[in-house]
Amino acid sequence: MKKEYTFTFGTTRSHVCIQGAIPSIDTLVEDGVSDTDGQCGTSCRPILVCDTNTAGIARNILGDRDLPLCIVHPGELSKGWTSIEAILRVARDAGLGRDGLFIGIGGGVVTDMTAFAASVYMRGTRLCLVSTTLLGMVDAALGGKTGFDLFDMKNLVGTFYPARHIYMPLAALKTLPNHEWKSGMAELIKTAVLDTNDTEGEFLSLLTSLHGAFEEEGFPQSLVEHHLDQLVASIRCSVLVKGRIVAADPQETGEERALLNLGHTFAHALESAAGLGRLSHGEAVAWGMARSCELGRALGITPPERGEEITGLLRSFGYETAAPHPLMGDRHAFIRALGGDKKKKAGKLMFVVPGGRGAQLVSMEMIGQPLLERIIQGGPSV
Amino acid sequence: MKKEYTFTFGTTRSHVCIQGAIPSIDTLVEDGVSDTDGQCGTSCRPILVCDTNTAGIARNILGDRDLPLCIVHPGELSKGWTSIEAILRVARDAGLGRDGLFIGIGGGVVTDMTAFAASVYMRGTRLCLVSTTLLGMVDAALGGKTGFDLFDMKNLVGTFYPARHIYMPLAALKTLPNHEWKSGMAELIKTAVLDTNDTEGEFLSLLTSLHGAFEEEGFPQSLVEHHLDQLVASIRCSVLVKGRIVAADPQETGEERALLNLGHTFAHALESAAGLGRLSHGEAVAWGMARSCELGRALGITPPERGEEITGLLRSFGYETAAPHPLMGDRHAFIRALGGDKKKKAGKLMFVVPGGRGAQLVSMEMIGQPLLERIIQGGPSV
Repeated sequence: MKKEYTFTFGTTRSHVCIQGAIPSIDTLVEDGVSDTDGQCGTSCRPILVCDTNTAGIARNILGDRDLPLCIVHPGELSKGWTSIEAILRVARDAGLGRDGLFIGIGGGVVTDMTAFAASVYMRGTRLCLVSTTLLGMVDAALGGKTGFDLFDMKNLVGTFYPARHIYMPLAALKTLPNHEWKSGMAELIKTAVLDTNDTEGEFLSLLTSLHGAFEEEGFPQSLVEHHLDQLVASIRCSVLVKGRIVAADPQETGEERALLNLGHTFAHALESAAGLGRLSHGEAVAWGMARSCELGRALGITPPERGEEITGLLRSFGYETAAPHPLMGDRHAFIRALGGDKKKKAGKLMFVVPGGRGAQLVSMEMIGQPLLERIIQGGPSV
Repeated sequence: MKKEYTFTFGTTRSHVCIQGAIPSIDTLVEDGVSDTDGQCGTSCRPILVCDTNTAGIARNILGDRDLPLCIVHPGELSKGWTSIEAILRVARDAGLGRDGLFIGIGGGVVTDMTAFAASVYMRGTRLCLVSTTLLGMVDAALGGKTGFDLFDMKNLVGTFYPARHIYMPLAALKTLPNHEWKSGMAELIKTAVLDTNDTEGEFLSLLTSLHGAFEEEGFPQSLVEHHLDQLVASIRCSVLVKGRIVAADPQETGEERALLNLGHTFAHALESAAGLGRLSHGEAVAWGMARSCELGRALGITPPERGEEITGLLRSFGYETAAPHPLMGDRHAFIRALGGDKKKKAGKLMFVVPGGRGAQLVSMEMIGQPLLERIIQGGPSV
């Protein structure tokens, strides 16, 4: 089942390995140092970073090796400077040099923070990620975006710093709680919508077939046991689609990579307005995608049947898709949160909406405030 | 007197402008946005960053324009996360997007921190620096190294993020206090030592001729009035030498850029051991260079007459060159500080020592602990 892919993101080559088992520390260290001149002294000893949810996996990886381990608090609320400083402290205390190796083991929060810390420690050290959640595998771990939250704004601080090696061990998914599955599915659906090569709709069909597993008894165990092939195929498709998009525009200077933000302008504002950590990223993205379909339909860009297909799939996984969102709070706070979004150009907010195939960027000028408010608030279609 | 240079550091082009007057806000903003598609809405309004020493210059630059200004505390002790967060807060409050512009106005501490903040705010915004000190002009502002101190380690956290535009207005030097002149001269001497094209020793002679000005009555005013040509020529030489070295190795992955660390392994350890902020960077670098000459001589790499020439020039500017340094403190603390240096390879400390021309890297393996201790502590030559 092992499958490897290599992408070139700017000057960095990222190797992705989708496999059954959790990798051993020897493999991780060997891979981590293999890209350089092969020299490896005390200063290239690795440090491991995980959260309390993935500490068990990290200890399994370590076996009887005694290496520095930094365990951060889990979840979005820990994604701040305090955690970054804790990671940097472990690296400093371990005497890591520039040729040291940071190994992040966890979901998106852990891998984003570990990657950020690695990118700024002594202006950049080696980085290897073990992605343990579906969301991490299909989104956070791949593509080089690192960061943490500040002033209640998601990923306000960050860098582009692709990991050289990214492991996606399916074994880690067996213990994933339900809400984590849901969180990952939303990003999978997003990536399937963006797959312009998927003319037959196979990627979306794969996801539709997975939907059944979510309602089976014994989920998520049953998913991994009885639907493993579809799951692995979905992760592979997602890695390929995202990898291709990022390789074309590694630092989001063009419009290519910005398409990955489908649903995210609404989603980040919803997460901020609701209070960081109250909604899972996937729930917010699902709602944002439904809003994007609605917006695209109103602008005549998203064909109604495509909008309904996407929104229907989201609803089938139990996501909230209607406006206003119950946790959205005050409309003004939400619009303020929207205004703080990174996806601005020349001061104007940008949104991504699905087209007949793939997706496209639309600016606030095309939308106008009244339409935006209707999309957020709900209300009669025009 | 205006002189412009352009360097290519990796994927970024850095424009350096050495000129008499302090640039206007219109020039800075025009330059800041000129590298992109020319679009400029509310989100690309700039923010200015300075410290209390350069607030006057910043207000002059602003004129009657009402733009966000972040004033940080001056000096090495303010070079921490708290200041970075203050800069990021001003940017966030001003609603800057990814196409915003950070303008740093000050010496090395201000430009290093502004550049770091710009490099991580929304994963990278536009950056323009106005270097107001000699040290900043000949070292910090050029070459893309950004950072701040953490756990008492100089620039433990940082990125490579060259500014697109760097202004070096000589007018700013008129009010520079004496210790700032001294700090800059040490880096100038360092750069002259590294100039392998300077076969006639013209760069070093220029600096020797400046030395007289330091002893004249009315210094530093007299320096700017009567020795301006030599001063400008020195800054130009330094910009060219440093620019050439950085362009060959922008992220210090090879050995080229590491040569700029001549004297710095000793210097950073001295700064840390003495307590950050107690010594100027230049004083520490001067002492470190003298130690490097001594080390190079003991290893048979630095010809004795060259070592004496460099050390003599340093002494003529009043720098402490003898070992042990009065502020060095406990030998063990100093050696511990050395051990935390970034300039390690495969766990081994690296030093740069002058050769017959230019300089070269030497590793701890070549040196050995007894020789290192003698160089730090002083004592009879072998």
